[in-house]
Amino acid sequence: MEIILASGSPRRKELMEMLGFKNLKIIPAKGEEKVNLSLAPGALVEALATQKALEVAENRNKEDLVIGADTIVFHNGKVMGKPHSEKEARDMLSELSGDVHQVYTGVCLVKDGQKTARHELSRVHFRSLTEAEICAYVKTGEPMDKAGAYGAQGLGALFVKGIEGDFFNVMGLPVCLLGEMLKEQGVYIL
Amino acid sequence: MEIILASGSPRRKELMEMLGFKNLKIIPAKGEEKVNLSLAPGALVEALATQKALEVAENRNKEDLVIGADTIVFHNGKVMGKPHSEKEARDMLSELSGDVHQVYTGVCLVKDGQKTARHELSRVHFRSLTEAEICAYVKTGEPMDKAGAYGAQGLGALFVKGIEGDFFNVMGLPVCLLGEMLKEQGVYIL
Repeated sequence: MEIILASGSPRRKELMEMLGFKNLKIIPAKGEEKVNLSLAPGALVEALATQKALEVAENRNKEDLVIGADTIVFHNGKVMGKPHSEKEARDMLSELSGDVHQVYTGVCLVKDGQKTARHELSRVHFRSLTEAEICAYVKTGEPMDKAGAYGAQGLGALFVKGIEGDFFNVMGLPVCLLGEMLKEQGVYIL
Repeated sequence: MEIILASGSPRRKELMEMLGFKNLKIIPAKGEEKVNLSLAPGALVEALATQKALEVAENRNKEDLVIGADTIVFHNGKVMGKPHSEKEARDMLSELSGDVHQVYTGVCLVKDGQKTARHELSRVHFRSLTEAEICAYVKTGEPMDKAGAYGAQGLGALFVKGIEGDFFNVMGLPVCLLGEMLKEQGVYIL
């Protein structure tokens, strides 16, 4: 049995390494994300994580364990993806400034043709940001590949007063939940 | 002006690097910690952070900015330091299992003979741990140099269901608070 991460996110890779998966096989899912956007955020990230895991599992041995994950930022009833331009990144950060938003990550494990999906929710409290801070931050390039236009484990940490929930969920992989899901598959990290 | 971190903690160094302080001068304070243990936890970590910063500042130029920090774990009205033995580490983890504890970090900046100290509080929710998990975790060696006998940014993440507050505070340095304190000294990271 091989464990495969169906995600190209460097942060997810880093978190898997933190858990001791040093030579993890990484095969990012490439397929177009097809989901019903009217789903509630939790169901949406589970559906996206499942799509990714199933796509990669299709070309692997049945006994391999494939991990899919998907993260979205949710604010004022709206899903925030990755920004497409510096302008959009600045707009997203202005929206999040001085307010609370939600981060959802869905995780799906596929093994022996069976799939299990769950999700975790964390609430993130941003302090009030100045225009100058937002501009300086966007100029660093850090926001561009991240949902909600910030990285909680980078300079974006300066904006986060506090969170409620799993911090690693905000980074893109709910580590505690994943550990419990792996146990159910007979994979014990500790 | 040089910025000096008066702490030997590899996690604090890593967090300072995350904020862009790449070639930070590190001079760990060596003095014995002398504090009034009847202080409330917040006042206690501020006093300890201040001792460390003042000790290092004494031998530096006045215009240098010295950062001291101290972290404690607080549970059931009791301060938990670093474990002195594997047995003590196991006992600490059994105590924290399935319960909520507090992590306090004090930060003190010293510059031009002036000091400013503040602290941050985060609440950490542990899931219920089995004896086997505790033993396996202690065997990894990770708990031994950490207050409360766990590392939130290591395998210990598997035990943390969620937190309330600043995650980096739990790691040993409240990044958002430090950023605001540095601004007051004219040091702008963004």
